[in-house]
Amino acid sequence: MTSTTNQSLIFGSDYREVAVGDIVLLAGQEKLKLDSGAEIGPFPMAFRTYGTLNTAKDNVILVCHGLTGDQYMLEEHPVTDKPGWWELMAGPGKPLDTEKYFLICPNVLGGCMGSFGPKTPDAATGKPLGLAFPVLTIHDMVRAQRLLVRHLGIEKLFSVIGGSMGGMQVLSWAVQFPEDFRSAVCLAAAARHSAQNIAFHEIGRQAIMADPDWCEGRYFDEQRYPAKGLAVARMTAHVTYLSEAGLHRKFGRNLQDREQVSYGFDADFQIESYLRYQGKAFVERFDPNSYLYITRAMDYFDLEAEHGGNLSKAFGRVTSPFCVVSFSSDWLFPTEESRRIVHALNGAGAPVSFVEIPTDKGHDAFLLEEPALFDTVRGFLKGVEGV
Amino acid sequence: MTSTTNQSLIFGSDYREVAVGDIVLLAGQEKLKLDSGAEIGPFPMAFRTYGTLNTAKDNVILVCHGLTGDQYMLEEHPVTDKPGWWELMAGPGKPLDTEKYFLICPNVLGGCMGSFGPKTPDAATGKPLGLAFPVLTIHDMVRAQRLLVRHLGIEKLFSVIGGSMGGMQVLSWAVQFPEDFRSAVCLAAAARHSAQNIAFHEIGRQAIMADPDWCEGRYFDEQRYPAKGLAVARMTAHVTYLSEAGLHRKFGRNLQDREQVSYGFDADFQIESYLRYQGKAFVERFDPNSYLYITRAMDYFDLEAEHGGNLSKAFGRVTSPFCVVSFSSDWLFPTEESRRIVHALNGAGAPVSFVEIPTDKGHDAFLLEEPALFDTVRGFLKGVEGV
Repeated sequence: MTSTTNQSLIFGSDYREVAVGDIVLLAGQEKLKLDSGAEIGPFPMAFRTYGTLNTAKDNVILVCHGLTGDQYMLEEHPVTDKPGWWELMAGPGKPLDTEKYFLICPNVLGGCMGSFGPKTPDAATGKPLGLAFPVLTIHDMVRAQRLLVRHLGIEKLFSVIGGSMGGMQVLSWAVQFPEDFRSAVCLAAAARHSAQNIAFHEIGRQAIMADPDWCEGRYFDEQRYPAKGLAVARMTAHVTYLSEAGLHRKFGRNLQDREQVSYGFDADFQIESYLRYQGKAFVERFDPNSYLYITRAMDYFDLEAEHGGNLSKAFGRVTSPFCVVSFSSDWLFPTEESRRIVHALNGAGAPVSFVEIPTDKGHDAFLLEEPALFDTVRGFLKGVEGV
Repeated sequence: MTSTTNQSLIFGSDYREVAVGDIVLLAGQEKLKLDSGAEIGPFPMAFRTYGTLNTAKDNVILVCHGLTGDQYMLEEHPVTDKPGWWELMAGPGKPLDTEKYFLICPNVLGGCMGSFGPKTPDAATGKPLGLAFPVLTIHDMVRAQRLLVRHLGIEKLFSVIGGSMGGMQVLSWAVQFPEDFRSAVCLAAAARHSAQNIAFHEIGRQAIMADPDWCEGRYFDEQRYPAKGLAVARMTAHVTYLSEAGLHRKFGRNLQDREQVSYGFDADFQIESYLRYQGKAFVERFDPNSYLYITRAMDYFDLEAEHGGNLSKAFGRVTSPFCVVSFSSDWLFPTEESRRIVHALNGAGAPVSFVEIPTDKGHDAFLLEEPALFDTVRGFLKGVEGV
């Protein structure tokens, strides 16, 4: 289909080398200009594809992952050996049906699974870029995705879909490249990051940067690793992904492997043990500097402010049908934020369907078993096919 | 009034010595048995009083402070030089009227402003106890308060009042010593700490314990101080004290001292700058180990479980009138939790009035300018006087 290279990369706290899938070099001819003014290129972009591209090249769905996701959406993760993060949504016969559609899932710019990011070695020194990597925006991530899509010879996407930060990318596609897709699905997202969202991200960043093993971002050079800071950042974020009701249902005040509290600082409660596990598991697979850069990109996202305070203006060129989904117990990206997107799309005259799905699974619901979500996405895409 | 000693104590990251007010030694004759089984005594208890004790000794209000509060509720704080934390609620002519009532505000057991806590020197070594200090419960704190009240020669409190963890202490008074008060006011509290509450506390503890300067709790011995970990813990907690709407009103996405984002990791947004300030200011005045112990005591609080799953049983001996207040935007101790307390008090046949105050100030509302709160407390206490 296209020339791809295979590249191995340093990874995680154990410095193990892991081979990741398809990697292409983009912006080799003309550099990509970022919102900050920095110019990058040629730069590597890692991605995975699932399904078969048809001859008309009109069956392509671009899948945009969330903050801590990556390109391994439908296969075992090379670092964690866990199943893909969206096996419930995609695959043969699933809403994102790989017997019908050709899915492209790129690792975002700034990520740590092969795409250009702070872990990419500096050409001059061979050492990871660290904080020499430029600060990014969601729009920059999407510009890089479009270079990839064009590089793969695709002119128009059948759909672009994503949840959370992936949903922000979907909105950025709508703002920047509205002619390049036939439909769009935006799950559990917002057109701007709220003060509370920024606050929680800032806590995560401070936790990482407070860890002396962070070494101002040069931990790889120093043979150290801010595992504890990154774990605290992950624990904080993880609590925001769940609802109070969901936590209560799943854990309540149940004790972990004991009948009585220990009167100590061990993990007495299941929720503590669960959070500690989440923190540790994350450290294995994610790069601390990538966490800083990607959370920062989300914080900067504010389509309304970019368009003179009028969100409808952001979507002025959108004519393709949009599907917007929120989850009732998502307090990180609450339904109200999805409604603002819907109103703005309506105001811009774009066709949009909106569903709020009742669930106690919180923000994470877009990744979980939610039959109403699957029905919504399946039905929406079927409608687009019929147009 | 009673024999008190003055004692100075090491304090905070700068090791400055600060003299704190009245300190008494309690449990000198008979040791106090804690829920963990440990026995303590004689132990120091620091407190401040405001107003004048009448001859009948029946005008006493015990004020229970929250997680990070202390006895300096109505005067300049000796460490921070800031005004008392409840000057809006108490003072001449205020709802807790010092022209009428005699207020006693003790520093909780486990605290760091003079009461027996992990910063108290070990009698044998002269070094702070650190993790040799026993793990506490809210009930233990209240038992110590009762020793203080009796030590001061008071048989029956006119009222016991507190918000957040202070409200938990009020509930513990109701369970343990229902005959010892004529009325009780429980603000923004809960009869149990939820899974989400525990999760946020666990993040704070992990942030402190992840800081290498924590030294397994022996930072004073090692001449170090886990300032960064404690700051992250405080930042996390602080976000939970505010509502999303309040944050939006106060900060929104406003930038801090700049026209444009910096494309860097400085505090671009006001909310970031505010949180960093909150973290730093807290480190000055609070002891990291105290933070571990006090959050743990809150996590262990569950009156329902202690009474065979029946919260009404917990309040079986309560006959004094109760005032329960919640705040509409408090998501840490939501109205639902206050309602459970009210239902249980009703079930126990105790007289209870309940108010949910509409506000966007979140959990912190009990410390802030909330006229409806002041009217409620004033009216309730007036009613009790009239009985």
